Amino acid sequence: MPPQPLGQVKALTFDVFGTVVDWRGSLIRAGEALGRALGVTVDWARFADDWRAGYGPAMDRVRRGELPWTRLDALHRMILDDLLVRYNLTFLDEASRVHLNTIWHRLDPWPDSIPGLTRLRSRYIVATLSNGNVALLVHMAKHAGLPWDCILSAELARHYKPNPEVYLKAAELLDLRPEEILMVAAHNGDLAAARSVGFRTAFVARPLEHGPGQSTDLAPDADVDLAATDFLDLADQLL
Amino acid sequence: MPPQPLGQVKALTFDVFGTVVDWRGSLIRAGEALGRALGVTVDWARFADDWRAGYGPAMDRVRRGELPWTRLDALHRMILDDLLVRYNLTFLDEASRVHLNTIWHRLDPWPDSIPGLTRLRSRYIVATLSNGNVALLVHMAKHAGLPWDCILSAELARHYKPNPEVYLKAAELLDLRPEEILMVAAHNGDLAAARSVGFRTAFVARPLEHGPGQSTDLAPDADVDLAATDFLDLADQLL
Repeated sequence: MPPQPLGQVKALTFDVFGTVVDWRGSLIRAGEALGRALGVTVDWARFADDWRAGYGPAMDRVRRGELPWTRLDALHRMILDDLLVRYNLTFLDEASRVHLNTIWHRLDPWPDSIPGLTRLRSRYIVATLSNGNVALLVHMAKHAGLPWDCILSAELARHYKPNPEVYLKAAELLDLRPEEILMVAAHNGDLAAARSVGFRTAFVARPLEHGPGQSTDLAPDADVDLAATDFLDLADQLL
Repeated sequence: MPPQPLGQVKALTFDVFGTVVDWRGSLIRAGEALGRALGVTVDWARFADDWRAGYGPAMDRVRRGELPWTRLDALHRMILDDLLVRYNLTFLDEASRVHLNTIWHRLDPWPDSIPGLTRLRSRYIVATLSNGNVALLVHMAKHAGLPWDCILSAELARHYKPNPEVYLKAAELLDLRPEEILMVAAHNGDLAAARSVGFRTAFVARPLEHGPGQSTDLAPDADVDLAATDFLDLADQLL
């Protein structure tokens, strides 16, 4: 049994990119396959990192009101179209661009994600709580076989994490008090934001999310409720 | 293969109360069990019918703006508290009232619902599109083992079916055009509203939803795209 502060937890909400799925490895593999098919040579690891690097600034444009609410698929596409210029890939046709952009719908889970979620689901509601839009998350779940009880997304709050509205909307829709929800993420910033509105927090280490040279989020902040090495360890601690 | 008008369908959205689950039979069985436990005699079939009869007028109060947006759990509770007066059951304590109100979270599916959804899910996104609130639908899915890809609810639009906002919000969140979605319901009014915003429609007969004397929704309107006797027949026609 978990220590008492977690005894009232009824639902687990999961960050997805990096925490549940290996976006970087998946983008590299899918990019390399596309490159072979098209006969082009690209440093897909750098391409993946550059694509992800555009994510924060794109969400900031929404946060500042420079862009109206824009779902993540559309932000990914704006960043992609810029990247294709930088990588001399502007000859790619619309079908190839759509194929590239929807790699984010077909990311592969870390090996422990599905068995861990399956175990956790036996006691808790397990839901996404991602900046990915609903359609992206639904497609990803079908592609990968992720056993979610519920797809929750920043799109439902029309705000991006770590803005508090996202966590509060999740609590409202689950009809739970914040302290009845455990936010699970590989990112201390996401957990700090969830904690600030009253969620419990669990850090799961994903030290290879950003590749072999990762320097951030290697260890949990001191004030997380729980830290786990992967989803199986999380299930061992919670069940 | 389905006839061409349905060839572009990518997602099936399901009405839930009556179409997927047998609310009346479930309420009667749960009421009788509670009655035995408490030693009270109630006509639970009439109680179930009266409870459901309060549903439309309660939603109308939200539609007219007499009530602010109010989730279905809270409308059910308002109707229940009135019913307890009419049935001389005001001695029921808060725990019993909560137990009664959350019967709606534990409704049993029709026998064909789970095998039909499981087959349909192999080709299509299968989602709820119910006036039930998100938490109610999540609890019901876990209780009954309903294999949804996504929980969509009137609560996400903050309007109740058959208002068009509910169907349009579902299309927006699935990132599909209305004609790419097939609304499945046992109620011609729900299907007519979905059709009016461009959805395809499938009628599934549930002639015992309202008990042996049912007089409504025994047959599909002429303009549905498809009519099925149950979810297995629906799968036969669509797969």
